Amino acid sequence: MSRKPTLAVVGATGAVGTVMLGILSERPDVYGEIRLVASPRSAGKKLTVRGEEVVVQALSPEVFDGVDIAMFDVPDEVSAQWAPIAAERGAVAVDNSGAFRMDPDVPLVVPEVNPAAAKVRPKGIISNPNCTTLSMIVALGALHREYGLAELVVASYQAASGAGQEGIDVLYSQLEKVAGDHGLGQRAGDVREAVGEGGPFPAPLALNVVPWAGSLKEDGWSSEELKVRNESRKILGLPGLRVNATCVRVPVVTTHSLAVHAVFEREVDQKAAQDVLAAAPGVVLHDDPASHVFPTPNDVVGTDPTWVGRVRRSLDDPKALDLFLCGDNLRKGAALNTAQIAELVATEFTS
Amino acid sequence: MSRKPTLAVVGATGAVGTVMLGILSERPDVYGEIRLVASPRSAGKKLTVRGEEVVVQALSPEVFDGVDIAMFDVPDEVSAQWAPIAAERGAVAVDNSGAFRMDPDVPLVVPEVNPAAAKVRPKGIISNPNCTTLSMIVALGALHREYGLAELVVASYQAASGAGQEGIDVLYSQLEKVAGDHGLGQRAGDVREAVGEGGPFPAPLALNVVPWAGSLKEDGWSSEELKVRNESRKILGLPGLRVNATCVRVPVVTTHSLAVHAVFEREVDQKAAQDVLAAAPGVVLHDDPASHVFPTPNDVVGTDPTWVGRVRRSLDDPKALDLFLCGDNLRKGAALNTAQIAELVATEFTS
Repeated sequence: MSRKPTLAVVGATGAVGTVMLGILSERPDVYGEIRLVASPRSAGKKLTVRGEEVVVQALSPEVFDGVDIAMFDVPDEVSAQWAPIAAERGAVAVDNSGAFRMDPDVPLVVPEVNPAAAKVRPKGIISNPNCTTLSMIVALGALHREYGLAELVVASYQAASGAGQEGIDVLYSQLEKVAGDHGLGQRAGDVREAVGEGGPFPAPLALNVVPWAGSLKEDGWSSEELKVRNESRKILGLPGLRVNATCVRVPVVTTHSLAVHAVFEREVDQKAAQDVLAAAPGVVLHDDPASHVFPTPNDVVGTDPTWVGRVRRSLDDPKALDLFLCGDNLRKGAALNTAQIAELVATEFTS
Repeated sequence: MSRKPTLAVVGATGAVGTVMLGILSERPDVYGEIRLVASPRSAGKKLTVRGEEVVVQALSPEVFDGVDIAMFDVPDEVSAQWAPIAAERGAVAVDNSGAFRMDPDVPLVVPEVNPAAAKVRPKGIISNPNCTTLSMIVALGALHREYGLAELVVASYQAASGAGQEGIDVLYSQLEKVAGDHGLGQRAGDVREAVGEGGPFPAPLALNVVPWAGSLKEDGWSSEELKVRNESRKILGLPGLRVNATCVRVPVVTTHSLAVHAVFEREVDQKAAQDVLAAAPGVVLHDDPASHVFPTPNDVVGTDPTWVGRVRRSLDDPKALDLFLCGDNLRKGAALNTAQIAELVATEFTS
C-alpha cells in the first residue's frame, strides 16, 4: 500500500529545526502531513513549511498518533525521554541528539555511507551523527571503500553555531566589541578584557581559537573528540579504527572545517584519490591550489555537500593522505542528514 | 679578550624588527654598540632601543665594518644577498629569513633544542627557523629527549601577523567590515562580498579560516607545510622523521597554535609527559581542562614561552600523544629566537 508518510518535526523552532523547515520545503513531495512540534511555550506559533503556515503543537504522547516518522532536533535529555514514546506510538524516530548514538540497538546512519543500517532498528530509533563527524565522514567513506581506512588524525576548526543560536549571538557580539580597535590581540588577555566573560565558550572566540568543545571525559579527552572517534568507527563499521581528534572552536559562524591525516590499508595515489572524491555522491572536490582553489567555510556555508581540497599524499608514507574538508554543520552536519535518513525510511512507505 | 660584541639589526623598522628592539631593550647588558640598519628609504629615522635613540643607517657593505653579530629580519632575497656580505666583513650573521635554512653549511638553531649547532657555521651564517616550526619545536624537543620522536601530524591555526604588518592591517580592516552585521557568514560568499579582494590572504580571513600559507610546492604541498617537515627534521637531527602538516590561517592577530599528534619510539604516559613539559626550559604547561585551563592565542600573545595543553595519550596507541600548543609567532617564532641565537654567539666574546 503506497502512501506518503506523515512526518512530525520535534524541535521545529530551534536553530536546526529552522534549517530543517527550509530543507523540507525544498522536497515538497516526500511527506503527506507535516506536524510541527515544540515545547509548550512555543506551541501556537505559526511556522511556514512547503509554503504553508502550520501551527506548532506542544510535545505530548498524543502528538505522535498517526505519525510515521518523527524527527527530533532537541537536547539529549528531551530525545532520551520522547523518542521512545514516539517509537512506542508507531513512528520511526530519527534523532539528531547524542542520546542514542552509541546504543548498539540504534543504527547511526549517513545515507551516502551506510544506508542499509537504517533498516535494522530494534528500538524504532535511528540516530543522526554528531556534526563534526558528519562534516568529514561522507568523503572518508568514499576513500574507505577504495583504499580501506586504518587510521585518522583529525584537527577541527569548528564554527560557533555548533553551540546553537547562543554561540552565533555571542560571536557576533564579541566581534562588535573588538572591531575598530587596531591594537587588540597583541597583549595577553586584552581580548578577554574587551569581550568579557559568559556564553557557551570557555574563552573568547573573537580574535582567538579555543581548543575545547563539549565536556571533559577520561584522560583529558573532550566528549566532542570521543564522538569523532566512536561515531566514525560505528558508521564505517570499523570497531578497531584508530582515531585521534583535537577539537578546536574558531571564530566562524557556520561550517566546520577539518584537517585530516588518513592512513589506509593500501597504497594511495593523489590523482586517483581526487578522482574517487570527485565521483562520490555528496562530495565536491575543490582542489587546485595553484589557482587558490580550496574550500573555506565561507565558500561552503549554506550548501549541502562535503567539500574537499588540499588532497596530498604523504611524502613519508605511500598509504597516507592529508586533506582539508568543510561541511555546513547545520545542514549536512545536522538537518540535512536527518532529512536524508527520514527520506530513506519514507521510501518504505512509498515503494 | 672579553668584550661586549657590536650588534647590527638589519630590518630594524619591520614588524619583527620592532619586536626585536623591545627584546634587546629587555637585555641591555649583552651588547656594546647596537647599529640599526634598514633600506635606504628608512635611513635617517630615529628608533629607540635600550632607552636610547639610534639613527637608522642604510644597508651597505660598510655598515658591517666592526660588527660582530648581524641579525637579519628581512625578506629572503635581501638576506640571500646581504648575509654573506656581513659574514665576509667578519660578522656572524643570524638570519630570520628562509634563504639559508636548508643549506647544509648553515646551522638551524633553537637554543633550547640544539644549542651546540650554533658553533659550527662554515659560512658564518646561522639560520632562525620558520615561525610555525618554532611555535612547537621547543616542547617537542623536550618530549623527543625523553621518548624519541618518530612521527608528527600537525594542523596549524596561524595568525595574520605571520604575513607581516599587511596581514595584521587586512585582518583589522576585514573585521571592521563584518562587525555589526548579524546575518553574515551564513550564505556562501557573503563574507567575501563584504570584505572584498586583496591583501596577502587568498580568501577572506574574517569569519573564515584559510587552508593556505606560502607558495605551492610539489604534489600540492605548500611551502609552509614543507618548512614544518624539513626544519623539524634538521633541528631535531632526525632526517627520517615522518612529518605531515596542514597549515591553515585563522582570524587571530598574533600567536600561532598547533594541534599535534606525536608518535614516539617508546611508550608514553600522560602524567609523565606533562611533567617533562612542565620542567622543560621555555615551555609552560597549561593543562587542566576540568578548570578550562588550556592555552589560547589571547592567553599567550606577548609572552616568550611555548604554551602546551590538552596533553592526552592516544586511546589507540600507547606510543602517541595529542597536544595543543601556542607560541607568539613574532617573539619565539621570530625575534626572540633570533635574539637567543645571537646571545649564544655573544657568549663567545664575553667568556
